[in-house]
This record gives sequence, structure tokens and C-alpha cells, in this order.
Amino acid sequence: MEIIERIEELRSQIKTWKKEGKTIGFVPTMGYLHEGHKSLIDRAVKENDKVVVSDFVNPMQFGPKEDLATYPRDLDMDAKLCEEAGVDIIFYPAAETMYKDSFSSFVDMNTLTKGLCGKTRPIHFRGVCTVLAKLFNIVTPDRAYFGQKDAQQLAVVKHMVEDLNFDIEIIGCPIIREEDGLAKSSRNTYLSKEQRESAVVLSKALKMGKEMIEAGEVNPQKVISTIEEEIKKVQGTKIDYVEIVTWPYLETATTTKGSILCALAVYFDKVRLIDNFIIEE
Amino acid sequence: MEIIERIEELRSQIKTWKKEGKTIGFVPTMGYLHEGHKSLIDRAVKENDKVVVSDFVNPMQFGPKEDLATYPRDLDMDAKLCEEAGVDIIFYPAAETMYKDSFSSFVDMNTLTKGLCGKTRPIHFRGVCTVLAKLFNIVTPDRAYFGQKDAQQLAVVKHMVEDLNFDIEIIGCPIIREEDGLAKSSRNTYLSKEQRESAVVLSKALKMGKEMIEAGEVNPQKVISTIEEEIKKVQGTKIDYVEIVTWPYLETATTTKGSILCALAVYFDKVRLIDNFIIEE
Repeated sequence: MEIIERIEELRSQIKTWKKEGKTIGFVPTMGYLHEGHKSLIDRAVKENDKVVVSDFVNPMQFGPKEDLATYPRDLDMDAKLCEEAGVDIIFYPAAETMYKDSFSSFVDMNTLTKGLCGKTRPIHFRGVCTVLAKLFNIVTPDRAYFGQKDAQQLAVVKHMVEDLNFDIEIIGCPIIREEDGLAKSSRNTYLSKEQRESAVVLSKALKMGKEMIEAGEVNPQKVISTIEEEIKKVQGTKIDYVEIVTWPYLETATTTKGSILCALAVYFDKVRLIDNFIIEE
Repeated sequence: MEIIERIEELRSQIKTWKKEGKTIGFVPTMGYLHEGHKSLIDRAVKENDKVVVSDFVNPMQFGPKEDLATYPRDLDMDAKLCEEAGVDIIFYPAAETMYKDSFSSFVDMNTLTKGLCGKTRPIHFRGVCTVLAKLFNIVTPDRAYFGQKDAQQLAVVKHMVEDLNFDIEIIGCPIIREEDGLAKSSRNTYLSKEQRESAVVLSKALKMGKEMIEAGEVNPQKVISTIEEEIKKVQGTKIDYVEIVTWPYLETATTTKGSILCALAVYFDKVRLIDNFIIEE
């Protein structure tokens, strides 16, 4: 496995592979890889001849008051996980490599980026779309893998790829959870012991909501209220949002029938965690 | 030569060429091809194994009060010119092929799109960047050719390609002019006989400005005033702008030294024409 920092070096390797007719799988990450990322990497290794993982904490997707400076980083740990999983290249560019001083372009959309996490993180998805457009143009993969934990991101990326005609198959992969149900996340490392214990309420409340729908509840507001009440029982939680929207266009759902996403974001002090479930028709 | 309307059909042909190691030149146009376009096509034919011309009047780059409905179209004439010039494929998609009902993504930038034509055409370059991102992803050319007549467009495209890491060489080609100096444009067909005669003032005034700089004038405002006065002498002209900006970043120039673009847009009644010169250090 190689760790490549320069764009031209990566391009050159990829062009060689393309000439040999190799397929390329791509897993874009911000590093600090956990079992969730590993599930994407494993699938990419299984489905493609060559696999590239990008390991880049993208400044453009963090708001001015967000956790860019403290976002956890550990290249050695990431490299070990990737090497063992059969990754061919980690792309590890410096911020200056990705964003020159003159940089001013962006990719965004008028619809899916506005609600859910887009409300409290207004520039987040612009940053995500822009860095992914760049990475897609650099890596030119056949397939790219995203976790469903960031369901809005998955929907946004699929929409961008369709709208802008990237010739890439976007593959969404299931949420990987800790034993007690907490969705795996690099940000879980921010939690105190007490918060870590409290955080189990997210998956628990979502499970209750899902069971209500499966039992026939069609009113989204009733499901949302149940989830919110369950979360509010736990001290130290502050709900950012609990919403039910259509999948994959993320419009407010007036019924739980059809394909829907039920997503939430909850603060534990300054740590903001997300989780969700999708019901596809 | 083939005329292809469907994206997948074009992609399939291009993938075959790529496998054969062929280089691909691309000339994006809105059709109604004239000698200006032909100069781009000729160069593309000369420098690449295969050449694709897109012929698509892009609704996204027209403002609500602009000339989308009346923009001249003539596929037969375009096909004849392309065939004779040695083009391999005309890509001629329907608007619905390029923009589905759910379409909502865009590409834009915070800098180069704001001044010059961007002032009176605030959504124009967003439309240009977006359709070009789409076309670049569909055609995946090695080289793409743009006329310098639309100098701001050329600068914007180069900047977008650099920022978003499209692996494409953007080649700017000189302005092609009528015998009396008027820059070739599909919009020249809108001009009445009288307006057509008046329109020669644009190239004439720019030539005066260029000669002032070559004779040592360093004050952009003096050059601009001379050009404006010359144009105002002609009845029926209404200046949108005459500006001197740095090249290629399009920032207001405080001196005519260094690389600069002197650009103008002038109305003849409702017909808006553009012209410019670039001095590169």
C-alpha cells in the first residue's frame, strides 16, 4: 500500500490502472477510521480491482464555530487499518494541495442541502459537494462508497452525481453500531464516559419510532414526538432536530408511507451526534 | 460523422475510443456555428484523434429577460460545417436530457463570475459552469477549446477546471473578426443593416485603447474614457461596461502594466455585443 500526498502522483498511478482495464473503488473519508469506514473499505475491496481511500479533513465543510481544529487525526492507525483491509492507496493531501490561495469555486444544490443538518450547518454540504467533485475528478473511480449514517450526505452525493453526470456508481452502506446500538462515529471519542452511556438513547429512540411505523403509524409527527420525548428523558441531551422526510429527495413527509428517512441530530454538551433509519418501499 | 442525442450512447462511443488510446478534443457550443467556432474546431481536429462538438442552447445560462427563445438555431448548417471540418460526433441533447425535473445542482465561484458580464447577467456564469461541468463529465475530453471573444468565460472555465481538478487542458483561441473588424458572433444576426454598420465601432474603439497602452499609457481610466467616448459618438449605442481588469483573475486593474483584459459590452437597441483585447506579459 502506498500513501500518496500529491495529486499528479495519484493521477499517474490511476491512469496506469485504467490502461490495464482495472476497476477502481473509492472510499472518501476524513480519517480516524473506525469499523464503519472499514465496512465501506471491505466492500470496495470486494467489488473492485483497486481501492483508493482518501484521508482528508476537509476544512471547507466545517463552519467557523465547528470542530475543525480538534477533529481527531491518526494517520498511522488509518494506514494500519487500510493496509490490513487490502487498500492500494491512501490519498493524504495537505489542505494547501486541495485549496490553493486563489481557490473560489464551489458545487452546491438548491434542494437537498437546505434541511436537516443543513439548517444548523449552512455551508457544510457546499463543502462536501465541492471536495467530492474534486476527489471524483482526481480519483475517477468506477464506484464510491458512503455510509448511511450520514444519510443526508448520501442523498446529496447521489443527487450531485446524477445532476452533474459523474460516471460513478454511488453505493450506500448500512450503519455500523457499537454493541449497545450507538452508531460508530469518529466524534464518539469526544464523549465523556457519562455522555457515552447516555448516547445509547439515540438508537433506542429511533428503534421505537421505526417500530411504531412498522406497527402501522402513518402520522410522522406522532413518531417524531415519541422519539423526542424519549431523548428528552435523558439528562444532558439537547435536540437539534428529529425529522421524517421523503427518501431520497428529503422533502418534509406528510405520511410515513412510501420511502422515508427518519433522521436526528442531538447535542451532548458540545458534541453533536447524528443517527437515522431509512424505510425503502 | 454522427449526431448523438443520448448521453449513454455518447459515453459508450467515447469509452471505446479511450480503450483504443485515442485523444479527444471537445468544442462546446450553442450552435449556429460561424467562422469563430470553426477556428476552434479546426484546432481541435488538428490536435486530437477524435473531436466532439456539443450543440446545445443551454437554458440555465440565460436570464429570464434574455434571448433564450429567439437564440438562432440551425442544426443542418451546423452539421454541414462540422462534417466538412472533420468532426466525429455532434452531441445534440434535448433540454430534458440535460436537465431532469429534479435537477437542482450548480457549480459557481465567488470571484471571477461577479464583475464584467456577471453584473448585468448575474446567473449567466453559474449556468455556464454547471453545463460545462456536466459536459466535461460526459465527454471526458483531453482538451477543450474556447474562444477568447468570451474572455470572461475563458477565464472562468480555466479557473473552474483548476479549482475542481478536471483533468482537461483548456485552450483559448483568438477572436475571429469580420473584414471590417466586428467580432464574429451568432448574435450578429440580430442586427439591422444600420446597426451592423454601427457595430464596427467596438473593434475600432478597442484598437484605439490598445494603441494607447502600447504607446505607454498606464492609467486604465484614461484608456477606458477614450474607448467610451469613441462609442458614444455612434448613435444608437448604449454602453453596458468598458473595463480593464487583471488577466486571468479579473480584478480591477490599477495600472495597464502586467497582464490585462480590456473588455466591453454594448447594446445596439436590445442586441448586446461583447468584444475585448488581452495583453499578456
